[in-house]
Amino acid sequence: MRLADLTHVFSEDFPLFPGAPPTSRTTAVTVQADGFYAQQWTLSEHACTHMDAPAHFVAGGRTTPQLRLSELVAPVVVIDIARRAAGDPDTVVTPNDLRAFERRYGRIPRNAVVCMHSGWQARIGSTESYRNADAQQVMHFPGFGKAAVDWLLTRRSIRGIGVDTLSLDPGNSKTFDSHVTVLKANRYGIENLRGLKAIPARGATIYLGVIPWRGGSGGPCRAFASW
Amino acid sequence: MRLADLTHVFSEDFPLFPGAPPTSRTTAVTVQADGFYAQQWTLSEHACTHMDAPAHFVAGGRTTPQLRLSELVAPVVVIDIARRAAGDPDTVVTPNDLRAFERRYGRIPRNAVVCMHSGWQARIGSTESYRNADAQQVMHFPGFGKAAVDWLLTRRSIRGIGVDTLSLDPGNSKTFDSHVTVLKANRYGIENLRGLKAIPARGATIYLGVIPWRGGSGGPCRAFASW
Repeated sequence: MRLADLTHVFSEDFPLFPGAPPTSRTTAVTVQADGFYAQQWTLSEHACTHMDAPAHFVAGGRTTPQLRLSELVAPVVVIDIARRAAGDPDTVVTPNDLRAFERRYGRIPRNAVVCMHSGWQARIGSTESYRNADAQQVMHFPGFGKAAVDWLLTRRSIRGIGVDTLSLDPGNSKTFDSHVTVLKANRYGIENLRGLKAIPARGATIYLGVIPWRGGSGGPCRAFASW
Repeated sequence: MRLADLTHVFSEDFPLFPGAPPTSRTTAVTVQADGFYAQQWTLSEHACTHMDAPAHFVAGGRTTPQLRLSELVAPVVVIDIARRAAGDPDTVVTPNDLRAFERRYGRIPRNAVVCMHSGWQARIGSTESYRNADAQQVMHFPGFGKAAVDWLLTRRSIRGIGVDTLSLDPGNSKTFDSHVTVLKANRYGIENLRGLKAIPARGATIYLGVIPWRGGSGGPCRAFASW
């Protein structure tokens, strides 16, 4: 069995969506002074590689502990739009991308997690580059278009969508249509994935080890794949 | 494939080892006021179901992101001492328990995670009952005896050990011998597991979705099993 990590190191300098409370850590005890070492963290549920649960956008929607374990282990497919994104940071995944994927790799399986690989993880070392905001503070990075999310929900009955960027929607979205569409359908999203290019486009299994945060709107998640 | 969750809900009222900084959460934004909902958490790396990495007791030992993904997916076996623990909360897993396990279920596989099922999760609703401290503040709950950990490391080359209690060591330990032994061997421990009785004693696979906390002495982890 081959394994690949899809998770960034959880750190205080990881780029956040604007407005999210900052991440911080302190050393609580040390081996030298106390005999053992531990840190304490303060974090937003939407820091680093994390899940968006339905409750993130839907009042009364399911929180993280309410997702069934069987929803967190799923077939995964990777839609690669990195070449297009390199020239147009506002590009989105479209139904045409999904149809082209299926012609090449075969049908997207039922209950799959469908991930966008945009190449954005190369920018992770710089919040400025990862957010890619213009002078008006409008961000420019790729995401899922609403039409693709509708297509996946109605025609392929997916479990969720994942991205290697800060948001399921493109950075310039003001209405968060892909968030709203996938979360209102009682499915989930995963943001800030990495390593999607290292797994097969189709045929791997994704494991979403999200901590079952009480009342969670989602939250930090260890994502990996096997095939 | 069958799946079983081995993780408690991560919450602010989960019993902590004495001295650990308290867990807290606040609501940062709401759907009603802000259009979306998110919480913020403050937590110790040793809260709720979590991993102890080598760095927890070993200066210069490996931190959480330094554990390889191949170490986090492993065969799991469950040593059931619940009947004995019900009568003697100071009982420990011994080499005799391991030999009796192997006579009944077969050899413990190489690179396994060996878990103690003590029945302690029934006490989880009460910090007082879960810690079970006496008038002198000495806690009484089961754990791994050092002799069993030595046996597993030298004879079965295990990946790590797991417990359904607050500590790898029994509650009355002052020297943390099992912690020191397993972490100095560059292996890990998992504390506050649940549901160990619901998986096969031998033959399942454990998935340890620990968040790769930067500099982590371990940290919150989604643990589950398949078979």
